Amino acid sequence: MKTLKIPEATVMRLSLYSLFLEQAEEEGKVTVSSGEIAEGVGVSPAMVRKDLAYFGEFGTRGVGYNAGDLNQQIRRILGLNREWPVILVGAGKLGSALALYQGFLRQGFHIVGVFDNDPERFGKRLGQIVVQPVSQMEEVIRKRGVEMAIITVPDEAAQEVAERLVGAGVKAILNFSSKVLNVPREVVVRHVDFSVHLGVLTFNLVLLNRNNG
Amino acid sequence: MKTLKIPEATVMRLSLYSLFLEQAEEEGKVTVSSGEIAEGVGVSPAMVRKDLAYFGEFGTRGVGYNAGDLNQQIRRILGLNREWPVILVGAGKLGSALALYQGFLRQGFHIVGVFDNDPERFGKRLGQIVVQPVSQMEEVIRKRGVEMAIITVPDEAAQEVAERLVGAGVKAILNFSSKVLNVPREVVVRHVDFSVHLGVLTFNLVLLNRNNG
Repeated sequence: MKTLKIPEATVMRLSLYSLFLEQAEEEGKVTVSSGEIAEGVGVSPAMVRKDLAYFGEFGTRGVGYNAGDLNQQIRRILGLNREWPVILVGAGKLGSALALYQGFLRQGFHIVGVFDNDPERFGKRLGQIVVQPVSQMEEVIRKRGVEMAIITVPDEAAQEVAERLVGAGVKAILNFSSKVLNVPREVVVRHVDFSVHLGVLTFNLVLLNRNNG
Repeated sequence: MKTLKIPEATVMRLSLYSLFLEQAEEEGKVTVSSGEIAEGVGVSPAMVRKDLAYFGEFGTRGVGYNAGDLNQQIRRILGLNREWPVILVGAGKLGSALALYQGFLRQGFHIVGVFDNDPERFGKRLGQIVVQPVSQMEEVIRKRGVEMAIITVPDEAAQEVAERLVGAGVKAILNFSSKVLNVPREVVVRHVDFSVHLGVLTFNLVLLNRNNG
């Protein structure tokens, strides 16, 4: 994975700020302070200001940020000011849930293909999409100019799927298998192991319980 | 959420190091270098060393780390050297997939209850667990000493569920709804919005495409 000057944690928090700002907009708020964003997302106000400072000057001192403007700027920074075609490989329980996940569409991610190697799953309807044989994957990637893929196949198949994706032109992979993928340096991979999130919780719980007891 | 001295990104990477070390162990490797861990996880070797340095001295200069020892130490740091009872609220598609997610069990997380408010889902079997009415949630939390919960309910129900969980003694929540939760400061929340991960990918893709073109 490429090492960036902007910390990945900052990039992830930007997405959370964007979600919070959307919520604020929906609630009719026009202006928000870094303190409100911080409170809403669960970080310190200083961290919000530092994260935003990577990308220039936002907001007005003593007034705060215009929620809509800031959200648009963040979405532009994150590349979310356009639509992205995405394919999903592995139509098991998790894959099916993700294919139907409304949050993707809301953020501009369009699942344009779901693939599996189990003939029993071919033709299965997931929202607007029908599960296709994995043999058709490369063709869809090329035809639709797909650069992003989500892997929800069993661990033992994950590496091979990743290689095929990269071979066909995919440059960014969201990996839900527990296999750590080996891909060329220029390919961006995010490894989503849910137990990683639980690990962050337990780490904090242990600290919390230690401080309290 | 509590602000910690250890960056959250470090804590998340520790989980990834642990997954990588497990894989290395399974492949029969005894010693691994920070370079190998870095390569496997997709960060720089300096970052691996820096992350580990928060917790003391590991490994032998010029030799590397004993994979099994390092993994055990990391798991202890993360609080993964014990089992954790976890409940899950919301037995829809995503909740069902998560209830059956093997990665949790592998890391010591035991789903001890799955709750929903839809009577049609009551009694539905998910692996070892049967979906129960959400009215029984508090009792299970208290009886089993549950401190961790996973929320996979629709957005509009998420805040109320979070408040009930906290009221019953839950101290850490993994939130899969797209609602930013408002909880007391001492409660640890991880917000898992899958589009946040895709946002990290698009951010990197935009950079990548800019540098190449």
